[in-house]
Amino acid sequence: MKVRILVSLKESVLDPQGQTVRNALHTLGYNQVKDVRQGKVFEIELEGLGRAEAEKLIPEIADRVLANPIIEKFSWEIMET
Amino acid sequence: MKVRILVSLKESVLDPQGQTVRNALHTLGYNQVKDVRQGKVFEIELEGLGRAEAEKLIPEIADRVLANPIIEKFSWEIMET
Repeated sequence: MKVRILVSLKESVLDPQGQTVRNALHTLGYNQVKDVRQGKVFEIELEGLGRAEAEKLIPEIADRVLANPIIEKFSWEIMET
Repeated sequence: MKVRILVSLKESVLDPQGQTVRNALHTLGYNQVKDVRQGKVFEIELEGLGRAEAEKLIPEIADRVLANPIIEKFSWEIMET
């Protein structure tokens, strides 16, 4: 089973990395870019799990290991079963 | 317009960061995790562009700035117009 987990900073948290990318894009003339937020994506392959078990495991892994729940939020989707 | 761009290493490129995450998950007992690949996600807000212009601009920005086309691939989707 292939799963994609997106981890990004909460809206209230400053994102200097995203700001740097935005500034770089402006320097290159891409002034249509109003805002950039940068996050992480994890593409995970799971084995030996049913869908219900996976739906329990994925947020547990995301919350415990992949994201820092103080400053980050996550979303996930099953790409392939 | 809100756009999401995912940048990840090409399949043929080693991903030590993903391997480290996988090993950490195994240490915690999550042995169902067979593989982890880590990439970047950019959430970008564009203004003053029609859909057709955006569809031209987004891959240009991704290819030129956000991804390193030698070792990375990208995909994108328009989340909100």
